[in-house]
Formats: sequence, C-alpha cells, structure tokens
Amino acid sequence: MNYRMIIYILGLILNILGGCLLLPATVGIFYNENEWKAYFLVAVLSIILGLILVIKKPRINVFYTKEGFVTVALSWIMLSVIGALPFVISGEIPSIVDAVFETASGFTTTGASILTNIEALSQASLFWRSFTHWIGGMGVLVFLLAIIPMSGGHNMQLMKAESPGPQVGKFVPKIRQTAFILYSIYVALTLMEFVLLIAGGMPWFDSITTALGTAGTGGFAIKNSSIAFYDSKYLQSVITIFMILFGVNFNVYYMVLLKKFKSAVKNEELLSYFLIISFSVVCITLNIKDVVYSGDTYEALHHSAFSVASVISTTGFVTTDFNTWPQLSRFILFVLMFIGASAGSTGGGMKVSRIILLVKSSLREIGSIIHPRSVSVVKLDKKRIDHATLKSVSAFFVVSIMIYVASVFLVSFDGYDMTTSLTAVAATMNNIGPGLGLVGPTGNFSIFSPFSKIVMIFDMLAGRLEMFPMLVLFSPTTWKGTGTVIKRRLKAIKRKIAG
Amino acid sequence: MNYRMIIYILGLILNILGGCLLLPATVGIFYNENEWKAYFLVAVLSIILGLILVIKKPRINVFYTKEGFVTVALSWIMLSVIGALPFVISGEIPSIVDAVFETASGFTTTGASILTNIEALSQASLFWRSFTHWIGGMGVLVFLLAIIPMSGGHNMQLMKAESPGPQVGKFVPKIRQTAFILYSIYVALTLMEFVLLIAGGMPWFDSITTALGTAGTGGFAIKNSSIAFYDSKYLQSVITIFMILFGVNFNVYYMVLLKKFKSAVKNEELLSYFLIISFSVVCITLNIKDVVYSGDTYEALHHSAFSVASVISTTGFVTTDFNTWPQLSRFILFVLMFIGASAGSTGGGMKVSRIILLVKSSLREIGSIIHPRSVSVVKLDKKRIDHATLKSVSAFFVVSIMIYVASVFLVSFDGYDMTTSLTAVAATMNNIGPGLGLVGPTGNFSIFSPFSKIVMIFDMLAGRLEMFPMLVLFSPTTWKGTGTVIKRRLKAIKRKIAG
Repeated sequence: MNYRMIIYILGLILNILGGCLLLPATVGIFYNENEWKAYFLVAVLSIILGLILVIKKPRINVFYTKEGFVTVALSWIMLSVIGALPFVISGEIPSIVDAVFETASGFTTTGASILTNIEALSQASLFWRSFTHWIGGMGVLVFLLAIIPMSGGHNMQLMKAESPGPQVGKFVPKIRQTAFILYSIYVALTLMEFVLLIAGGMPWFDSITTALGTAGTGGFAIKNSSIAFYDSKYLQSVITIFMILFGVNFNVYYMVLLKKFKSAVKNEELLSYFLIISFSVVCITLNIKDVVYSGDTYEALHHSAFSVASVISTTGFVTTDFNTWPQLSRFILFVLMFIGASAGSTGGGMKVSRIILLVKSSLREIGSIIHPRSVSVVKLDKKRIDHATLKSVSAFFVVSIMIYVASVFLVSFDGYDMTTSLTAVAATMNNIGPGLGLVGPTGNFSIFSPFSKIVMIFDMLAGRLEMFPMLVLFSPTTWKGTGTVIKRRLKAIKRKIAG
Repeated sequence: MNYRMIIYILGLILNILGGCLLLPATVGIFYNENEWKAYFLVAVLSIILGLILVIKKPRINVFYTKEGFVTVALSWIMLSVIGALPFVISGEIPSIVDAVFETASGFTTTGASILTNIEALSQASLFWRSFTHWIGGMGVLVFLLAIIPMSGGHNMQLMKAESPGPQVGKFVPKIRQTAFILYSIYVALTLMEFVLLIAGGMPWFDSITTALGTAGTGGFAIKNSSIAFYDSKYLQSVITIFMILFGVNFNVYYMVLLKKFKSAVKNEELLSYFLIISFSVVCITLNIKDVVYSGDTYEALHHSAFSVASVISTTGFVTTDFNTWPQLSRFILFVLMFIGASAGSTGGGMKVSRIILLVKSSLREIGSIIHPRSVSVVKLDKKRIDHATLKSVSAFFVVSIMIYVASVFLVSFDGYDMTTSLTAVAATMNNIGPGLGLVGPTGNFSIFSPFSKIVMIFDMLAGRLEMFPMLVLFSPTTWKGTGTVIKRRLKAIKRKIAG
C-alpha cells in the first residue's frame, strides 16, 4: 500500500478543510459572535497539521483501487471529526458524539440533526452546517482534483470511490477538467437558486444557507420548522424544483451545455427519475387530498411534490409533517428513501440507475428461463453494461441490505418502535435526514443512545461513499502487512535517533 | 410449448387432490358431521375432471424449464382454488376469496388465517387445513414423481420448480427414487412427532393435526390460542424441536440414513441454521427475560426458543404473543421471517443457503477490490458454486425484494400501520403465518380487503414456489404463440363438426 501517498492526500484535504473553516469564522466576525474563535482555531490547527503531512512528497505515484477507497474513507472520517471540533470548543454541542453526528450528517448531506433547538445556534455554526452540505455534496476529493494538478494514475481511483453511481462518468478524458466542469455547473446552479430565493423575499443569510443545503441535497435548515417557516408557495416551489434538479445526473447538464439536447432528454435514468417522481406525487396527492387537506387538491399537490422531491433527492427539507399522512403515502416515502437520486448527482440512496440495472438483470434472468438458448445483454442508454458492473451493482444491493439490517438490529437496542428504528437507519444510510415515527419531521435524532448514534455515523458515511470504501477500510485484509511496515519505520527512526 | 403434457400432468394432480379430499370426508363421516358431503362432492368432481384430462396421453415427452415452471404454477393455483370449494359449499367460509386465501395458506404452508374463530370449524375442515400443510410441505409434484412412473426429461424440470433452495438435491440418479426417499423420511418424521405428542397426553386428533402442521412447517392450529392451548412444557418443547427438524435440509437425514455422519454434521447450511437459531434465541431470551417474564430465565428461554423455531422454520405456531415483546426481539423475528429455513426442507423464506451464497459473493466482491488480480470462487460445502447459480441467487433476492415492496404498496391501500403492512406481506410471502401488529399472534388476516387478500394469495404462492414459476406463468412472452395454437385447434374442431 502506498502509505506516503495516502498521507499526502490527507494533508491536502486538511488544508482544504482549514480553508473552508475560515468561512464560518468570517461569518462569526461579521455577526459579532464569539464562536468565530472556535472556527478560527480549528482552521489554523487543521492547516498546520495539513502542512506537516504534505512536507514529504510521495516518490511513487502508483495508486490502486484499494488505496483510493482507503484514502476516501479516511478523508471523510477525518472531515467529520475535525469539522466537529468547533461545535465542541464553542460549547454549542458539548458532546463529542453529538458533534461528530451533526458534522457527519452535514458532510454526507444527510441532514439528520441531534439538535432540539436549531435556532439557538450562532450564525457561524448555522452557516457551517449548511456549508458542509455543499462541500460534501459534490465531494471534497473531486474538489481537490479540480484545483490541484496531480499526476499519476491515482486520480481516477479517488473519483471512483467518491462519486455516486454504478459507473464513473467522465465528461472529458482529463479528470481534472471533468472535476472542474462538475464544480462549475454546481456553483452555477447554486447561484441560480440563491438569486431566485432572494427574488422571492427570503432574507439573504437564509437564501445562502438554503441554497447551499439544497445544492448538496443536504437538508439542514436554519429554522426549527425547516422550510415550513417560509410560508410562501413561491419559495417552497423554487426549493422543490431545485431539489429535483440537484438529484439529476450532472452529465445531463453537461450535455445541455454542449447543446446535445437529444441525448440529454433521452437519458434513461432521467426519464425513470421523473417517472418515479410523477407516479409518487400523483399517488400521494390522491391519498392525502381528502384525509389531510379536506379536498384542497392544490395544497395536497404542493406538499406532496415538496416531500417527494425532498425524499427522493435525499435532501430532507420539510414543509409539513408527512409522518401524520396515511400509511400508503408513508410507505411510498419509505421506498423513495432507498431508491434515492440519480448517479452523478449530489443525492444519496441506491440511485435510480442501479435500480434500473437490477430490474433489467432480473428480467433477463426470467427471460433466460423462458428462452434458455437466447443470449441477452443488459443495456443502459443503448450501451451494453459489462458483466463486472452488473456484479458490482448486485453486490452493492446485497451489502446495503445487510448493513441496513445489521444497523437496525443495533439501533433496536434502544427499544423505539418499528417505524422509528426502520426509518431512522434508512434516513441516515441513504443520507436523507428525517424519517418517520419519532424521527419524523417534528422529531430529531437526540433520542438515541451514543452507541446508536455511532452506528448511524457509520451508516451516513457508508451511504455517502456507497458502502465499499468503508468496508474496505475496516477489512482486516486491507491492512495485512501494515504492522511490518510500521515496525520497520520505527526501527529506522530509532536508528536515526541513536546514530 | 408442450400443452398436452401440461394438461396431462394437471389431470394427474387433480386425481391426487381428489384422493386427498376423501380423507377429510372420512373424518367428517367419523364425527357425524354434515360437512363430509362437501368434501366428498368436490373429491368426486376433482377425480372426474382429472380423468377427462388424462384420457389423451401426450405423444411427445420433451419438456423444458419453462413448461416445468408453468405446470407447477398452474398446479398450485388449481390446488388452492379447488381445495377451497368444500369450505364454500359447506358454508363454513362463504366468501370465495377468503376460502382460497385459507386454502392457499394451507398448501403453501403459510398458516395465515382469515378465520376469527377457528374452533367453530368442523373436524373435517380442521383436518383438511392441517392436511393441506402436509401435502404442500413436501410438494404435490414431488409426490406425483414418487408414485407414478414417468419417462422423459420433464421430471427434473418439475422437481426443480417445486423444490425449495438454490440447487436441486438429488440423492440418487433416479428422480423417482429420490422423491420416494424424500417422502419416506417425511412420513417417518411425522409419525415420530405424532407418537411423542400422544405420549405427552395430547388428544389423538390434536396430535395428528399438529404433527401434520409441524411437518409441513405450516402453522394452522385447531385451537384459537394455537399451541398456547396445550399448557405443557413437554408438548411445546416437542413441537419446538420438530419445527427445527423440519426446517433442516432432508439431504442431511439421508446422509444420516447412509451413516455418513461426518458429512451430515459438516453441512455448512446446517451449521449456519443452528448458529442463527442459537444467536436469536440467546438475544431474545436476554431481551425479554426481565421485561416480559420478570426475571424467569427458563420461561423466557422456553418461549423465545419456540417463537424463533416457529418463525425461522416458517411454521407459525404460537405459544405467546410475541408482538408485545420489546422492539429488539420483534426485529429479530422480522429478519428471521426473510431468512427462512434450509433448502430442501419443507420450510419457506429465502433459505439459509441462499443467504450464505449472497454473503459469500459480496465478500468476494469486496475482496476483489482489495486484491484485484486474485481470482476467488464461491464455495459451499467445499464444492465450487457455478456462476449461473450465483446469478440466479442474486436475481432471486432482487425479485423477492421487488415483489415484497410492490405487495406492501398494494396492501398499504387498506391503511393499516407500518408494522402491520410490512409484516403481513413478509409473513405471507415467506410462508410463516402470523406477523406483528394487527396480524400478530392474537390477530388474523380477516381485517384486509379482498384486494389485499388476492395480493397475499399471490405472495404465498410466489413464496412457496420461489418466485420464478409464478413470474414465468404471468409473463406475456411465455404465452407467445399460444393464440395461434388455440385458433388452429378451434378450426380443426369446427372442421370435424362440419364434416
């Protein structure tokens, strides 16, 4: 394993994190809040530590998938822990487990909160929560690839491990350019939403944080009642539309930029994504119209569209307490939690394209019973999907279900009801935020034991990185030989000191 | 498609069904009940119809997997519908949907009931319910193969479609002998349980029906309070042990008969099955000991073992209302519902061996990330599992989850709570019987709408036949060309009449 390279990249990440932390510090200074010191302190520490790690440039550039996965998993754990320190130092979230939960929830764009009173936070911390969504949405390693020129074959491995979806979409042959294009589209869309929110009369701080939270499909709001606070159909509709837009594969936007409208519109995942959304919105609207909104179709449609967009894009903003809706609507939302957004978007979940591939390979299996001698292939967007991808998609599905079951088992020790336990894990693993039952729109995750919180921190990270990086990190075979390397290094250091 | 062959086999099945129906008729005569007439009438009708269908022996013996699947699916639907007629004719279950639900629940060894007062049934019907479990447990086509000499390549296809598990275990090269051995072991074990129950003081009618219900891992009891009625630790423990035994791969018993004790004990699925049972029993015992049984470890262990055995073997007998247990225990039972018993047993669910294969292939996938160039194979009992089996196992998993989600969606229209909806479908699809919530041990399935009941009838059949036969039956491509064949036949008949 190329330890030096891993350490070097972690150092670069720490530098970026330090730079990011300066932003909430500035916000704190602007609002005359004491909390800016905590952010500034951690920013400086992070940069210093980062600089120490990047002193020695790695000589060897060779980098395998394994190393890519380990680096990404370690980076995200590091981001969640160091990014949590300002909350602890400032005393706003005194418990370290709670602070890491909140930060991991931010970076992974989950948006599940352990806070019972969000509005008590400083503006600096409110900004930091939303900003972690934005950084985490597109990915911090993708950002690194976009700004720092790196040579060698490791770039692709990093991108592969951090980008969501069954396949990595490269727009252009060069990774750096691809990453740069991705971030440009991301910034442009975020700005667009910000402007539309400001135009609708939302205060500018609220507009910034809401735009950041929507862009990352995060879901942290700065009000206790989330988006229900802004009692404006215009504002809520803007957010609905942008939640859906940020759940679209960014590849589609790139096609649009290249004026390849036809291939943009014919994208199979895009069509399925809109089909699932439409079907769910119609079902839920009909289901809640009379029972919840006493026949008011427009009101039912508005809240149904917002909630469906919020859950399928795995954002987690809320305009109404969908936990009180009838069972059919609740179940649809539960299923949407697992489906998630599109590959190559900022959303979480299993991703629509994976579901398409799973359905197609199962249909092929049934077809092969009916016509045993016919050889059929699975295609997506008219391109043949290779066998390795299909295998990895079905392994992803099995592993996700296993981690899900194991996590619900562990969280069940807390003894909350079935709905709460099932949806708390579903909402964290798929990076949504609110679930149903006690963790529904009016509840929060403070009710869980520290043990359950740690389980869900793992789930959030595993979900954001699509399972495998976290599993590779915690697999003993990954670290075979590491003991020997460490011993050898220690001996060398001793010899240096002695000589 | 070999239509004539399919019709011929359906005719044979009808003859067997008619013969089986004579048994409850006899029970009715013995108890001086009027209901015997309904059973006798349907038996005679079934035999006459069966004889008509077998008049013309098929000339061609060629039989593909598709035909095997279609035959098995049609047979089971036919069994459920015709087997339900006595309930309707006698007026004991007047609704046809309810009667088919009850009968399908019997044949598929589910044991979910729509009856609110079981004890009001005639002895004839009580016997019939338990007897359907016994017939369905080992399989009616396997029975057919055991008693009727058939030539041609179709036998294996039928056995493949009806036997549970990822691979078909043939003990001996000849199918007929294999089927005969299976049924012999089945009869012997059933008799053994019957004797032990009688020895414990259970009335002989109760002992017969309970033994039949345990053997098929069915779960229909003849008392409203199920096995809780027999307030005897001895009787309940005998049933616990036999529920576990009938969930074991019958291959293991054959090994024991051949005195190959080593390979019997080293069976990977057997070990995992016992490991899962032990783990679950210990967890639940510790979880319920203080809360439910105020510190009485023996009592907790007794009921925990009974419930775990009942659920994992997919039997569904009940000694206590496990729906009132704490969430951890309830969740363990929910997971056991899906795992199910062993392949080649009379139990339902996904089967332990499939779970083992899924876990192993996922681990292999993670391993291939860590060591990309190593070629690793998945083995079970030291035998290499071929690629086609692995693909079909993962397709089975995906298809099961899809049918599960679609079914819960449809059942959710009834508007019952999350736990009830999720577990009602889980309990029917995996052929268990009781679920949690409103369909828990003290509830029943009468609360659902006819539409939901039809969905669950489909689920029970799909679950018992392991998904694919029902899907192949309802797939339009299966019936491509059938229209032309029917048209040609009709023309031929017209010509005959005209000339």
